[in-house]
Amino acid sequence: MNYSSIFSSIYSQIDHLSNRGELATYIPELGNVSPNKFGVSLLSISGEEYSFGDFDERFSIQSIAKVLALVLAYASENEKLWKRVGVEPSGTAFNSLVQLEYDMGIPRNPFINAGAIVISDILISQLKNPKADFIAFVRSLSGNNSIDYCERIAKSEKNSGYRNAALVNLMKSFGNIENEVNVVLDFYFNLCSIQMSCSELTQTFLFLANKGINPNNNERILSLSKTKRVNAVMQLCGFYDEAGEFSFKVGLPGKSGVGGGIIAILPNQYCIGVWSPKLNRKGNSYKGMKFLELFTTKTETSIF
Amino acid sequence: MNYSSIFSSIYSQIDHLSNRGELATYIPELGNVSPNKFGVSLLSISGEEYSFGDFDERFSIQSIAKVLALVLAYASENEKLWKRVGVEPSGTAFNSLVQLEYDMGIPRNPFINAGAIVISDILISQLKNPKADFIAFVRSLSGNNSIDYCERIAKSEKNSGYRNAALVNLMKSFGNIENEVNVVLDFYFNLCSIQMSCSELTQTFLFLANKGINPNNNERILSLSKTKRVNAVMQLCGFYDEAGEFSFKVGLPGKSGVGGGIIAILPNQYCIGVWSPKLNRKGNSYKGMKFLELFTTKTETSIF
Amino acid sequence: MNYSSIFSSIYSQIDHLSNRGELATYIPELGNVSPNKFGVSLLSISGEEYSFGDFDERFSIQSIAKVLALVLAYASENEKLWKRVGVEPSGTAFNSLVQLEYDMGIPRNPFINAGAIVISDILISQLKNPKADFIAFVRSLSGNNSIDYCERIAKSEKNSGYRNAALVNLMKSFGNIENEVNVVLDFYFNLCSIQMSCSELTQTFLFLANKGINPNNNERILSLSKTKRVNAVMQLCGFYDEAGEFSFKVGLPGKSGVGGGIIAILPNQYCIGVWSPKLNRKGNSYKGMKFLELFTTKTETSIF
Amino acid sequence: MNYSSIFSSIYSQIDHLSNRGELATYIPELGNVSPNKFGVSLLSISGEEYSFGDFDERFSIQSIAKVLALVLAYASENEKLWKRVGVEPSGTAFNSLVQLEYDMGIPRNPFINAGAIVISDILISQLKNPKADFIAFVRSLSGNNSIDYCERIAKSEKNSGYRNAALVNLMKSFGNIENEVNVVLDFYFNLCSIQMSCSELTQTFLFLANKGINPNNNERILSLSKTKRVNAVMQLCGFYDEAGEFSFKVGLPGKSGVGGGIIAILPNQYCIGVWSPKLNRKGNSYKGMKFLELFTTKTETSIF
Repeated sequence: MNYSSIFSSIYSQIDHLSNRGELATYIPELGNVSPNKFGVSLLSISGEEYSFGDFDERFSIQSIAKVLALVLAYASENEKLWKRVGVEPSGTAFNSLVQLEYDMGIPRNPFINAGAIVISDILISQLKNPKADFIAFVRSLSGNNSIDYCERIAKSEKNSGYRNAALVNLMKSFGNIENEVNVVLDFYFNLCSIQMSCSELTQTFLFLANKGINPNNNERILSLSKTKRVNAVMQLCGFYDEAGEFSFKVGLPGKSGVGGGIIAILPNQYCIGVWSPKLNRKGNSYKGMKFLELFTTKTETSIF
Repeated sequence: MNYSSIFSSIYSQIDHLSNRGELATYIPELGNVSPNKFGVSLLSISGEEYSFGDFDERFSIQSIAKVLALVLAYASENEKLWKRVGVEPSGTAFNSLVQLEYDMGIPRNPFINAGAIVISDILISQLKNPKADFIAFVRSLSGNNSIDYCERIAKSEKNSGYRNAALVNLMKSFGNIENEVNVVLDFYFNLCSIQMSCSELTQTFLFLANKGINPNNNERILSLSKTKRVNAVMQLCGFYDEAGEFSFKVGLPGKSGVGGGIIAILPNQYCIGVWSPKLNRKGNSYKGMKFLELFTTKTETSIF
Repeated sequence: MNYSSIFSSIYSQIDHLSNRGELATYIPELGNVSPNKFGVSLLSISGEEYSFGDFDERFSIQSIAKVLALVLAYASENEKLWKRVGVEPSGTAFNSLVQLEYDMGIPRNPFINAGAIVISDILISQLKNPKADFIAFVRSLSGNNSIDYCERIAKSEKNSGYRNAALVNLMKSFGNIENEVNVVLDFYFNLCSIQMSCSELTQTFLFLANKGINPNNNERILSLSKTKRVNAVMQLCGFYDEAGEFSFKVGLPGKSGVGGGIIAILPNQYCIGVWSPKLNRKGNSYKGMKFLELFTTKTETSIF
Repeated sequence: MNYSSIFSSIYSQIDHLSNRGELATYIPELGNVSPNKFGVSLLSISGEEYSFGDFDERFSIQSIAKVLALVLAYASENEKLWKRVGVEPSGTAFNSLVQLEYDMGIPRNPFINAGAIVISDILISQLKNPKADFIAFVRSLSGNNSIDYCERIAKSEKNSGYRNAALVNLMKSFGNIENEVNVVLDFYFNLCSIQMSCSELTQTFLFLANKGINPNNNERILSLSKTKRVNAVMQLCGFYDEAGEFSFKVGLPGKSGVGGGIIAILPNQYCIGVWSPKLNRKGNSYKGMKFLELFTTKTETSIF
């Protein structure tokens, strides 16, 4: 399929839309990004790459990194991982704390903050040098040694991270956190601070479209069964309170971050990454969502 | 693929499992079914059919009928349907009422009871003779004129349906129910009382695997886009509080009912129906879930 | 104490306040009242009466009648009444339904709608001719045979009473309603439609300040212990989500209604009734609350 | 009234009851107390004292100290205190976190943990040497310089205080905590660790029965109006989820602690303190509640 012409046709369509939405501002660093950045990158498992706009500029991938943390923890923890975190969508944000309380400290899924904090706790227990080992894993996936945490962002998160501190303390009161509260939060805030470009994202996540194997070096990252399960969890839980909307309109497993990035997977075909910093009311990239909706509609590709 | 040998191999595996779970007993009629019934039927879009066990015995399809109600309402209401009901998973059952209250009477999705009640209300406003027209639609889909409501079941539901009466009244207090409370409940209880066999289910639902077209007569039931969207809603909301688990382990869009039936769809390939009345703790057929998990694992078919 | 001069001094103070708040409009009938009505009446157990303004004009006493329903049910049901309804304050209104669900259909107290509906159900089971017998009880308390239900108000409540219908159905689903849903609602809507003036209110409720004995005829209505308990429940649960505020600022047991009436009790001394139809944000009479706050401050009378 | 004979008669009645309930064990230190301790002390504003059993043995007063923290903060903060904490009962414990979230970090009242933590934060900002100044205040109230924090208990609380850490972090995320999280928690855990005997409790709290004046030295602690308001808040919020029950059965403002202590006030008459470590299901002293119920019933004293 000629993705190039589809990309440019959709790009011009979206260009005519006013760029609605708002920058994330809950940490000051995220508010400093130029709001009209817009990049797209598609990488197929056969190695074709189509990119557009600001596709090679790095941005804060934020919650997209939660998928990588899950992958690394799941690879060695296996199915017993799911005793500490669920696989169910979370319902509306308004009851995040009551649900955690009702479920005795077991988060609904690994992509809500509480769930990614539990995954962080698991990685800290698993890894010898947690932060160094984790970024090494990300670099090896992406084939790019310059990918790194952003200290400024991590520090900014920490300075306003009282709500996450509430979550980790609540889970520790239920016995679902093994390590020191501050150590867990430090890892978690660093995790969310990783920076990549759209094309680096597609390199990094392509194994999820390729049955768990990194196509660059044929290394198996996850078994086929685990790969499908990670995709399934993304499908149901990857877009905050808009998972249904995304599934409905785009029809691909994926994950978004409040930095305005989104990755999506069409199994056995491609990985696509988009970035545009302004967010809709639900916290997902306004233009990014539009782009993906038009793209899967035009190409008639979706998992459904 | 030789589905026949896979069916019989899985069947014998499951036969060695103890038949755990419990019959639904919230209405007396459902408790009268023989608990060891077990049937399976697969129908491909090219017309191949594989069936096993009690595949041609009718049972109460219960909530599976909610998909048919959605399809008929969506076909003529189009996208404005989604102003009255959402497409997001519902989170845990424990807060169903508070969520409805928080969302001002708009149910999270068309498959929770509140959502199917709103769809019933829409159909009552749309159809000239609601109950007769709806069953005629089901009969035409299935190609079988003997499919019908079960008066005994519908009456049994009505006699213990105070919780559903609470839901419809609450929604009416928010202005999201147009018709008389009793008329809406009567339609809804009848909807849930429809009886089919596994092989009738696959006939009826095959169009969802076939881009919206009934393969028997090439009649278009839904547009391609709407078909994908109905599948997406099933994927995210089809299994009560076990949607994630089903997506994770089975990886197909589907819908279950408390009568012990499940239908699942592999787009462009097949529709599968299973029935076994004992339910797991989340209200889904114990053996049915196991069968589908083993089936998609063995055949390596899933949407992910 | 010279209540007359205190009354007139406070009256002129409040007269200088702008009459803030809003008329209740959830039923049309309540919106038709002249918003600047303002009446006060105090009746001491020794028979002194002080009245002011529109003290002898009847208005819809609404939830104030719930106290009378509780008194009649409690008198013959005794302490086993509390198996079906609690005595704890209800917390914020926003979770009324989830709390009812969490507590398996047992309302937190007899003054939230759900609780008064359970009391109505108890009275229907107790009384031979529920509506007639109940109004006879109210008339005997007040010594006034012209007190009556207002059919227009009761009908208006019924026409928009879907939320109350939701409550009664939810409780019936938990087995905490014995009678037919419609019969219970009819009694409840009539209960809330009773009309009295401020001076009739003080006549009717004076026994709660007099150890349970009607001072007019020395008839015992409730035992001393039950009288104290009804006063305690009013103290904690009588003002919707403003019970703490009322206790804090006024310091008397009492009960308000959305018609703008309030009664309050100083045990062993007096009963006071005020009426002003405009309500504050919490649903209690704006001027009525102010009047009582100034009155107990000036007279240095309160239970604390 | 001859309190002595009433005390001994009730004591023997309660002695015949089996000592039901359980010791608080959420911190190990509280589980080490001898479960059959039982002491009572009554002190009237005219200086009469009646004591019984283990009345002069110190125990951990726990949440009873929250009243003293409120008194000290209220005395200098005045009514603007109530911008940071409410005066409404809290409803069931199960939704403590969701309510805090719904109310944007403003606790319902100063006696739930979140509320006492806010009061601690206010005192830390007010006082030069918070811990030293606060215990000096308590010592001056009680006329006893040996009253002190218990380091062992405070440390034990800190080691298992993750839930309180969750609360303070959640409130800080809403801007309702000024000081460092750890400083606030340290003060709060010390506050809860204070130890007193029943007779020291009555000395300390007698001013609340005496219009705000310490009868020992005629020092005014609180204005009359503030004293009434503190009593009102105790009445509505002093007994966790059993405030209604206590109001209903005992009919006095009071406050309990999980160490098994209770204080109660009859305005213008007396202060009473009881201690028995085994707690009922709601977390209040089993024998203590029984004693007070029988005592106010026998003496026919209550505020209602």
